[in-house]
Amino acid sequence: MLLCDIGNSCAKLFDGQTLRRLSLEELEAWKENRVYYLNVNKKAAQILQNFDSWIDLEPFIELDSAYEGLGADRKALCSFIEDGVIIDAGSAVTIDVMEKKRHKGGFIYPGFEALKKAYASISPTLDKEPVWPKESLPLSTKEAIGYGMLSPLVCAINKLGEKKDLFLTGGDAQVLASYLPQALYKPLLIFEAMEKIIRRKNVC
Amino acid sequence: MLLCDIGNSCAKLFDGQTLRRLSLEELEAWKENRVYYLNVNKKAAQILQNFDSWIDLEPFIELDSAYEGLGADRKALCSFIEDGVIIDAGSAVTIDVMEKKRHKGGFIYPGFEALKKAYASISPTLDKEPVWPKESLPLSTKEAIGYGMLSPLVCAINKLGEKKDLFLTGGDAQVLASYLPQALYKPLLIFEAMEKIIRRKNVC
Repeated sequence: MLLCDIGNSCAKLFDGQTLRRLSLEELEAWKENRVYYLNVNKKAAQILQNFDSWIDLEPFIELDSAYEGLGADRKALCSFIEDGVIIDAGSAVTIDVMEKKRHKGGFIYPGFEALKKAYASISPTLDKEPVWPKESLPLSTKEAIGYGMLSPLVCAINKLGEKKDLFLTGGDAQVLASYLPQALYKPLLIFEAMEKIIRRKNVC
Repeated sequence: MLLCDIGNSCAKLFDGQTLRRLSLEELEAWKENRVYYLNVNKKAAQILQNFDSWIDLEPFIELDSAYEGLGADRKALCSFIEDGVIIDAGSAVTIDVMEKKRHKGGFIYPGFEALKKAYASISPTLDKEPVWPKESLPLSTKEAIGYGMLSPLVCAINKLGEKKDLFLTGGDAQVLASYLPQALYKPLLIFEAMEKIIRRKNVC
């Protein structure tokens, strides 16, 4: 079974064993395959209009939520977790809270690449490779940027996640994982969620 | 007495009563005046080379710190506060910790304008005017962005500032002030610090 998660910056194609990161242009090569997908990318939506073998899983997701405009990927992840905080660290970092199968809400933090560019846009002095935080307070610009990128986010997650399970996924999750040792790191969580939707709803 | 604080995006000129926000080009009109200044802007440094009446206060700042590359404005603010957390919310937000007249370190968070652009750069879906956080979790993209911009920063400041006095200044400080009710909001803090340096060191 082929699963595809199309995000803001690239598509991730998973065949149950191998994970491929593809550009939108590279999707064409998989057009004739039966592929189950989730998509939050408007450009990709146009391309996919001609992909007759591809099946959008979004209409099959069941999630109890009052959130307006929740992306298909967040919806799928949340529908897979009954209780806990789900952190998906991609080009944006999304943080969602589930309680007793209900989505309570969530927030969006810029991804690390976007943050690095944000610092660089403020001043050439801040155009630096970040040094990730240590125990002590930063004592250089590189450390001050690394701390600024990561520590506020970690603080907000810990506050929301008190007495809750944390689930961590996405391309930049590994950096976060070392600052959230209590979190369960699940790099393939979105595909597990997609498989469950297909199984439950008998999509074919 | 004329004081000028030159930051990354503009210069703030203060005559003891009126605060003027000036572009670097507009500084020329004040060239012949005696102006005491602090500068963190490389472009401005070149312009100021020909401003013979202007006096750079940075060499007169006394601060006990192991931080490498601390900006002149942060140095001046920290030298003015013996104990506490100093938050300067400008085009970058700087957060510095002082303990018993010693600078313990600090971090840098992108300013709100830079953050808004960072969200917009990730996806057109995130190119939205933020709605600042309420008590409950965000239930829309605008709320999710506003929460993401502000709540992690507030969390990190509260964690650093436990049992400490908070001092809040800078152009974007008012937004932060409503989320940090315990903080002392001092819009002219940098000029108070500059006056004290001039008085102490007898600069003329």
